[in-house]
Amino acid sequence: MSVTAAKGFTAAGIAAGIKESGNPDLALVVNTGPRRAAAGVFTSNRVKAAPVLWSEQVLKGGELTAVVLNSGGANACTGPKGFQDTHATAEKVAESLGLGAGEVAVCSTGLIGVLLPMDKLLPGVDAAVGQLSEHGGEKAAIAIKTTDTVHKTSVATQDGWTVGGMAKGAGMLAPGLATMLVVLTTDADLPSDLLDKALRAATRTTFDRVDSDGCMSTNDTVLLLASGAAQVTPEYAEFAEAVRAVCDDLGQQLIRDAEGASKDIRIEVVNAATEDDAVEVGRSIARNNLLKCALHGEDPNWGRVLSAIGTTKAAFEPDQLNVAINGVWVCKNGGVGEDREKVDMRYREVRITADLAAGSESAVIWTNDLTADYVHENSAYSS
Amino acid sequence: MSVTAAKGFTAAGIAAGIKESGNPDLALVVNTGPRRAAAGVFTSNRVKAAPVLWSEQVLKGGELTAVVLNSGGANACTGPKGFQDTHATAEKVAESLGLGAGEVAVCSTGLIGVLLPMDKLLPGVDAAVGQLSEHGGEKAAIAIKTTDTVHKTSVATQDGWTVGGMAKGAGMLAPGLATMLVVLTTDADLPSDLLDKALRAATRTTFDRVDSDGCMSTNDTVLLLASGAAQVTPEYAEFAEAVRAVCDDLGQQLIRDAEGASKDIRIEVVNAATEDDAVEVGRSIARNNLLKCALHGEDPNWGRVLSAIGTTKAAFEPDQLNVAINGVWVCKNGGVGEDREKVDMRYREVRITADLAAGSESAVIWTNDLTADYVHENSAYSS
Repeated sequence: MSVTAAKGFTAAGIAAGIKESGNPDLALVVNTGPRRAAAGVFTSNRVKAAPVLWSEQVLKGGELTAVVLNSGGANACTGPKGFQDTHATAEKVAESLGLGAGEVAVCSTGLIGVLLPMDKLLPGVDAAVGQLSEHGGEKAAIAIKTTDTVHKTSVATQDGWTVGGMAKGAGMLAPGLATMLVVLTTDADLPSDLLDKALRAATRTTFDRVDSDGCMSTNDTVLLLASGAAQVTPEYAEFAEAVRAVCDDLGQQLIRDAEGASKDIRIEVVNAATEDDAVEVGRSIARNNLLKCALHGEDPNWGRVLSAIGTTKAAFEPDQLNVAINGVWVCKNGGVGEDREKVDMRYREVRITADLAAGSESAVIWTNDLTADYVHENSAYSS
Repeated sequence: MSVTAAKGFTAAGIAAGIKESGNPDLALVVNTGPRRAAAGVFTSNRVKAAPVLWSEQVLKGGELTAVVLNSGGANACTGPKGFQDTHATAEKVAESLGLGAGEVAVCSTGLIGVLLPMDKLLPGVDAAVGQLSEHGGEKAAIAIKTTDTVHKTSVATQDGWTVGGMAKGAGMLAPGLATMLVVLTTDADLPSDLLDKALRAATRTTFDRVDSDGCMSTNDTVLLLASGAAQVTPEYAEFAEAVRAVCDDLGQQLIRDAEGASKDIRIEVVNAATEDDAVEVGRSIARNNLLKCALHGEDPNWGRVLSAIGTTKAAFEPDQLNVAINGVWVCKNGGVGEDREKVDMRYREVRITADLAAGSESAVIWTNDLTADYVHENSAYSS
């Protein structure tokens, strides 16, 4: 399953000793071909980690043979030494597999501002190479976890070809272009420009609309590698839909495992003048701490939805706004609507619909509630 | 003290029964002249409460004789009936004092989306009028509290004239133009255009740079009333500085009493290319939930400062950023700086300095930490 569900890939996940806990912390994914086409999207945070700067460069050629990923340290804000460490990691993988370093992408996740323990990471690469297997996808998915409580994988199998992937991410989870660390693989045979097109289309409406805590990471990376091993070239639309489905599934898994969360909140903005307006309003609602606290307390506090909408530049008239929570239109025409007592808030999923009455565009943003557990998890220790 | 420190003002604060707790909930401030010049600034939230819409209109003439304020209900998102209620409140005050309704500003604070109990509020106006006194400033300040644990007042006395004021606000505290409810009074004799100029200059660098929880209210209002009773017309610069000092003091009192907060965080952005850049970066840092949790846990997690800076459009180079926490430069040139163990985090005030190395402009934004108490206070009941 995971990144080895598609033919033409091997993977491994091991404990290199980067994490003090001794948990798995190093993953390797290798494309055994025959093709090496690849695409990637990266964080739009302007403070980018060293592995993001490296992998962006490597991807420019449209090909990748291997991806090495570590948890236990983000290698972000680590200056020239951090970049040298990323480069050395790629060189080590290349040397072990008989490749050039320019065929190896690097991903890191963990605490910002700390150098990686290269004395543990580099021997770990050798150990991972020794364990590469067509069944290694799950172990790789486990090795990239940080505060994730479960590993995340997804597979879409079509007629003779497959798209699979793994993801990690539980906090600092508001990707601007991608999210956290995701590796997707396929055995379909497509050139890198179509991989890139399908990946950008998929992430734009999946990972990009996950906004768990409003905090954009320095390390977000989504990679898509194609081996061509299935010897099938699917229709582009069919392929793009499979990539989107896997991204959507992984994005949902990220939301369901977000740090400290007790509610998964689906915010659908409808009847917006533009899709950008719908996304802006959805994000503003998703980032309203007071609303997120209210929903944690199972309080359908729609006034906080309206105060969030009011901070945006989207087209709307305040006296035409309508808001439903779990299907009950508690706000109509900017004022009191149906009885808020009718809203059933007992379940983990909360659905908010914000009707801007300004057009026909829409967007869905996913977020979580704000809980004492989130505060505890992010104040009790550095992460 | 408070709004009655300046000559030419009376005030009252009473319990009208708007709050179920029976606590004081209705305040009245009256300018007894001889002048009636006034100015006001209001929330930039596009979803504005009925009293904001009313008071904005009233202020257009540059004069005010009375301000009536209620806690226990924001009268926001209450439709045409809510506006009628605000109008009726102003009419009632006008009738009781022999004024026109157009001389009366109205301010409300409390839960959004609920109509005010006018059967209690209107008789309360009569009761408040009956208790108007030159010593009523403190009672008025107490009557406008919601989740505030203390009432907030401030006075600046100059040579023969005075500026005084009161404020409330503890949550939904990220004013875009003003903050929560503030009434300032002066016995200096100045025309409304100079009051307006001084008030806008003062709020721009005081209340506007308080960002406790990133949530902008629908009801923010700051009013300044001048009685001329001191029969002194101060130099504009001297007057503007007194207004700024009172606004700054009240803004600090709001931060110190913010819901659930255990830290007051002063974020100074220096060496920015423009003041707008400095404010944008300061706000981005102030709104980063992960950083606010870390500071709650007394963890000088500067990586979260850099990830917040990276989401802005301000001019900077990532490898030239410097960050100090409580005077220790823990991040230099975008990487690891002085030992974070040197940072003493034991005190309530935390000082963050973010050096963008891109110019010579600066700005200070104040915020609070994010705590389990904030989550509890905003999830356990509607507010």
